[in-house]
This record gives sequence, C-alpha cells and structure tokens, in this order.
Amino acid sequence: MTAKSEDNAYNTWSITSAAKAIAAGDLTSEALVASCLARIEEREAEVGAWIHIDAERALAEARQRDAATPGSPLHGIPFGIKDIIDTVDMPTGYGSPIYKDAQPLWDASCVALLREAGCVALGKTVTTEFATRHAGKTCNPLDLTRTPGGSSSGSAAAVADFMVPVAYGTQTTGSVIRPGAYCGVVAVKPTFGLINRAGVKELSESMDTIGFYTRSVEDAALFLHVLADYPQTDFGDVETLKPKIAICRTTVWDQANSETVALFDSLTERFGKLGAEVRELELPADFDDIAPAQAVLNDYESLRALAYERINFPDQLSEEMTSKIERSLTHSRDKHSWAIDLMQHCKTLLPTLLAEDEVIVAPAAQGIAEVGHVYTGDPIFSQVWNAIHVPSVCVPAGTGPAGMPLGIQIIARCREDDRAFIHAEWVRRALAG
Amino acid sequence: MTAKSEDNAYNTWSITSAAKAIAAGDLTSEALVASCLARIEEREAEVGAWIHIDAERALAEARQRDAATPGSPLHGIPFGIKDIIDTVDMPTGYGSPIYKDAQPLWDASCVALLREAGCVALGKTVTTEFATRHAGKTCNPLDLTRTPGGSSSGSAAAVADFMVPVAYGTQTTGSVIRPGAYCGVVAVKPTFGLINRAGVKELSESMDTIGFYTRSVEDAALFLHVLADYPQTDFGDVETLKPKIAICRTTVWDQANSETVALFDSLTERFGKLGAEVRELELPADFDDIAPAQAVLNDYESLRALAYERINFPDQLSEEMTSKIERSLTHSRDKHSWAIDLMQHCKTLLPTLLAEDEVIVAPAAQGIAEVGHVYTGDPIFSQVWNAIHVPSVCVPAGTGPAGMPLGIQIIARCREDDRAFIHAEWVRRALAG
Repeated sequence: MTAKSEDNAYNTWSITSAAKAIAAGDLTSEALVASCLARIEEREAEVGAWIHIDAERALAEARQRDAATPGSPLHGIPFGIKDIIDTVDMPTGYGSPIYKDAQPLWDASCVALLREAGCVALGKTVTTEFATRHAGKTCNPLDLTRTPGGSSSGSAAAVADFMVPVAYGTQTTGSVIRPGAYCGVVAVKPTFGLINRAGVKELSESMDTIGFYTRSVEDAALFLHVLADYPQTDFGDVETLKPKIAICRTTVWDQANSETVALFDSLTERFGKLGAEVRELELPADFDDIAPAQAVLNDYESLRALAYERINFPDQLSEEMTSKIERSLTHSRDKHSWAIDLMQHCKTLLPTLLAEDEVIVAPAAQGIAEVGHVYTGDPIFSQVWNAIHVPSVCVPAGTGPAGMPLGIQIIARCREDDRAFIHAEWVRRALAG
Repeated sequence: MTAKSEDNAYNTWSITSAAKAIAAGDLTSEALVASCLARIEEREAEVGAWIHIDAERALAEARQRDAATPGSPLHGIPFGIKDIIDTVDMPTGYGSPIYKDAQPLWDASCVALLREAGCVALGKTVTTEFATRHAGKTCNPLDLTRTPGGSSSGSAAAVADFMVPVAYGTQTTGSVIRPGAYCGVVAVKPTFGLINRAGVKELSESMDTIGFYTRSVEDAALFLHVLADYPQTDFGDVETLKPKIAICRTTVWDQANSETVALFDSLTERFGKLGAEVRELELPADFDDIAPAQAVLNDYESLRALAYERINFPDQLSEEMTSKIERSLTHSRDKHSWAIDLMQHCKTLLPTLLAEDEVIVAPAAQGIAEVGHVYTGDPIFSQVWNAIHVPSVCVPAGTGPAGMPLGIQIIARCREDDRAFIHAEWVRRALAG
C-alpha cells in the first residue's frame, strides 16, 4: 500500500528520512504535516483513526518548529497521541462519553518531551473506552470490514494508513502489540518504566506501559532513543547477525489460529536457513498461572484507578466495562498480592531461561484481524510478556487469510530494548522474503 | 493541647468515636464538620494549614452524608486532602503558581473511594511546591515560629491542630513521616502500592506513596482498612505483647541531633523493662548507597514527570526546584537503572534481616522541628525506608528541646502494615510514660 493522491507524498516517508531532510533544509515540517493532513482528509471518513484533529493548530505548531533551531534528530516530525494521554491544547476524552470535550491542564510527560524535541503534535487518535474493551469508531485500513485491534486502535490504523509516521499507544495486556499485528506496522512495547507515564489515564499501575507505532524498526529505535534517553541502537550488524532465537508459543498456544500455527511451524527451518540458532522454549510451570494473574492485576488495579468514574457515572460506562467492574469486585487484596508476587517471580525467572544473547520470538495475536468492529480481538498472546515487563517489538510476518498481515513479537530481557530492535529487524527481513 | 472555644468540641474526637456516634444517630456529620470548620476559623490565620476551604460546600456534603445510609465505618468523617491530589469540586494547585486556581476534571482515586465510604472532603491542605522542597505558608501549630515539616505540611498541621481528624499526605522521601514527627501526630506511610495513586500529581513513579495523618494509631488502622481493603487490625493484644524490636539507627546516624541520640540511647532499657526483646540492627553494606540511590530515583523520575512544567514555565519554578532540575539533568539512564536495581535488591534483602515477628524502630527525623519556615527539614532518616517500599508508622516519642515533640518510626515488612500498627501502638504507650 502506498499513499495515493499526493504529488509530494512526504506522509509516506520514514521518520529517519523526513527528519534528515528537515535538518538539511530540504523539507519543512509544515510541508510534512500538510501532507499528513491531506492523507487524513482523503481517508479519515473511512478509517476513523482520529478523535481530534485541528489542521490549523497542527500547521501552526509545524511553522513554529520550522522557525526554531532543531533540538533533536526528530525535529519537525509529527506524531499521533492516543486519546488516553493528556494534552493541554487538545481535548482528551479517554474513549468515554464522561470526558467528551474535556480539556486537561497539562501535556503528559511523553507529549511535553516530544514537543521539547521539536516534534509536532498532529492530533488525538481513537482509543477504546479507558483503554479497555469497548471499541471506538476505527476500521482496519487494510480491510475496512475488519477491526484494527485495540485499545490503541486509532494510532495503529493512522500509522498503517500513512496518516502519521509515529503514534503513541498504551498497553496493559496487549493493546499496543495486537493492533500493530492487525494493521501490519511495527509496534513497540518498551521495558516497563522506560517511558514516564505522568499524564496518562491510569488503568493498572503495575503494568501500564506507553508504547508506539512506526513503519520501520529503525524509526522505532530512533524514536525511543530521543524520547527516553535510551542508547542509540546500531543496526549495522543486522546483515551478518547469527541470532539465537527461542521460539515460545506461550501457555495459550491452543488458542492460536491456523495461520499462526502454520507460521510458527515454519520458523525453525526459515530462521535456521539464514544462520540462526533456533530452539523451542517451553515456559516452566512457574508461568502456568501468569495469564490469570495478569488479569487479576488489571482488574483489581483498574477498579481503583477508575473509582471516580465507576462511582459517579455508572450509566455512562459500556456493558463491557460494567462486566469488568463486576468481575473486579470479586477479587480480594490477597488475590492481588498473589498476582504481584507471581509477576515478580516470573520477571526474575525469565532472564535465567535465556542464553546471554538470545531473544524470544512469540505470536503477537491469535491470528489476523477479525471481521467486525465491536470486538477488537483477544490480547492473550501478550498477557505473559506484559505482566513481566519485558520489551517487545512486533513486526510484520507475512500474510494470513484474505491477505491480511500476520505479526510476530520479538522479546528481550528488561532494558534490552536495543537487542529486541536489532533482532526484530532481522526477523522482519527473514520473513519478508 | 486541646481545642479551646467549642462547647461541643467534636473536632477533638477520634475517628473511631465520632464514626460510632454518627452511626448510632448521636452525632451528625454536619455537626462534626461544623466543629472542624469552627476550629479552622479560629486558628487558620496563624497556622495556615489550608489552601482551599469552602465551608458551605463542606457542610452541604456533610448534610448529604447525614441523609444517606452509612456505607462504611468511616461514614460522616471529614478528611483533609493534600493539594497535590486532584479534586473535581475544589481547585488543585500542587503548591505552584503555574496551577493557581486550576480545576481538575475528576477526583483522585483516594478521594473518590473515601467519598464512596461516606467521608466528607473538608478542603485542600498546603503542600510544598510539587511536593518537593519549596515551602508553603504553614506554621507548626505547636510553635508557630517553627516549620511543620514538608511536603505534607498542611495535612500534618491540620490534624495536629484538631482542625480535621485525618488528612492525606504523600511521600517520595520523607514527606509524610517527618511532618508527623514535627507536629506530634501519627503518620502512616503504608506499603508501596497499597493506596492507588491515580489522580495524584506524580513525582517518582517508583516511590511516590500516599499516606495520612491521624491522632491515634487505632484511627489510622481503621482508615487504611476502609480505604484500601486492608484487613482490620486487632489491637486487643497490645497490652500483653512482648515485641521483638530491631533498633536501626540507619546509615545516616551521624546526622541525628542530640535529642534523637538521647532517645535512642534510652530505648533498649525502656523497651526491655516492658518485656520487649531488643537488639541493635546495623544494615549490611548492601544498603550503603541506598540513600544516594533514592535521591537519583527521585531526581531522574521527577525531571520527567514534571516535563511540562519544566519546559513551559521555568520562570514560575522556585529556586529550590530549579536547582533540583539542574542536578537531575546530570543523571544518566544508566544511573537510574543502577538505582532501581539497588532498590530492588535491598527491598528483597530486608525481610531476611528480621525475625519472623520482628519490627524495626528507627528515627523519624534528625530531631525536633527547626525554627523558621523556609526550610522544612531534612528527609534523610526516611530515605532508605521509602526506597524499599516498607510500611512505616510514626508515633510521638516524648519531647525534645523547647518541649517540641519527637517522633519515632516503626517499620515492618512489605504488606505487614498491621504488624507496624500494633507495634507502633505498643511503642507509643511505652514512650508516653
């Protein structure tokens, strides 16, 4: 898929190329933003990725950047902001009618830091209700009859559809990785704690993680480097890399669709041919209950984080949210303590299961995006990884039925986001052929 | 000290007594709130504990409670809210001119849950700037020439001065415990994660903890029980308790004032006479760098949490905050990782240093509250405990120079808040004689 009607389709450019052109004076941030806005104008009625766009405000911000001295390698780059993240000059609705047109008092840390780096806040992207299950209006840009996944629906769709080169998502279970897989883009869920969460509407203190989408792994690594003071990743060795890969089908493998089974059955041979050292990793019994523990953490903590809304606006919550609340009320503090302890145990255990320079390759979702827009798909294949805080990068891994993209996750130890990036790029190339 | 001019000084009552009287129909929440407001009217010009009080709003909320069916053992009890915590119907200024008269869009979780429990939000108490060093207007109610401590200045002073029976504080280093010690009240810093933080202006994700002040340990235990789904603490055995106590002077003992040295030199004999098994605990060398690590965590994380304010309003930050920011900018991500790892290591190590039913008794501050209102005192004696997430309860421990109160901390393992409460009550009685 490429952008259609633009003479100068800057909206399809990578972050790296666009930022270099801006720094060299060959491109303005205004022209880049205008190109993104034109694409949105052309496609938004069908895709529905955005909840708030003010073209004039975005262009004015871009002109400010053009007038300023570049402050980072991302100077002039527009970004999308999942509408669970506060912005001082754009309403923030958290995907809920309770906060329709609500205007926060500041920019979330992750927005303020990008603006300081010279980026342009393009607009707010659709989130499911409080980043949980109840879907927003977004369609999958690759097949409008299908879900884009959730909860970071709008951000994944907007990046996939060339409306913006990078956009924020958040993940408590699988809300960054799954939409990335469904929409065929690169999705990054960094190590827990790497991106500061101040100003993001909270769901689970123990697990909420800010992530993002790009259209290349190099773009993703550059973005994390600038945003989070994370060392720059060197992709120079990807060509000659002989990776060690532990294929992990996880504890919910029986719920994988046939296209995922076919993909994973082919991996050992395909990776092996390219010189990788491949093995199957079965998670030890310690992990047997990590999926239910993750669910308990999510339920117990979000019940408290959303106390104000639950208590004061029960009639404005969706059926999905009401069910979640009812289930959450049955969890005791002891059960939460059990879940926290199991999470910590498995988090400590994981590094011991891997060789020093080994990464895990795991399914990103059950399979391709389903038809329909009410259900955003099941996050189960990310539950274990998100619970133990490890970095995960999802890259396209060919196609499944109906030509829809399949994704695959590359997981490394906590803080080894750079290793995850390099191996994700290797895997992407290996599976692109 | 007792309340002065009230015929019916309900404002001096304990939570437990007042809530029982309300439940029995012998006292209305409105009368209790009116009594607190009268005390505030009488004393606020001197003490300066509050940044926002709207008497009519508070009384109206109390009348709502009186008209409703009691929903918890705290029904009808007024509480104070440190002005770092969002409230939907009262402005929230975070102790900064940047947010003067700012009106948040929701109640923080800890406010919404208390209101659900039938409590009455009395008003907002003074915080230092963003809960850091720059002091607000509050004076120590026991000696107006002295600091109340910080950052939870107004809450500690308000509870000490019988303006409200319970008030929220927050602690990143020593911001709950130290003001409690300086003002002679009970201060509770529960286990990290026990009280949900949604809606509290963030400083350090890794350490920020909501705590609170009361005038008795029983009140504190009841409050935590209702607020945080924490098991009810049974104080029945305090009389006959033969506690195991590890006296820990911590790694900064050379900075203790003479009154603290005198207190701690007397503890073994005083506790021993009452049947306690007492020993001195010297923290192992693993803890040698935990104080600087705590400072790095605080600096590194708050620099990011306050990104919006730092970038957009440098001229509205205090000198203390500007210095903190300059220092914070020198910390690398590697240094933050080192600090996180050390914190986790020491957190895991601590329980192994104690016998099963043993608690730690440690200084709450260098000594008594200093004269002056610019400097709120040094939090160093809480640094280690806050970094490793253990629950801590500060109780009065007699007086030092000028008749000012001395505090002492009782620390237990994570989640053993009940053990901390029971031993804190035992210590309080032991040192009250």
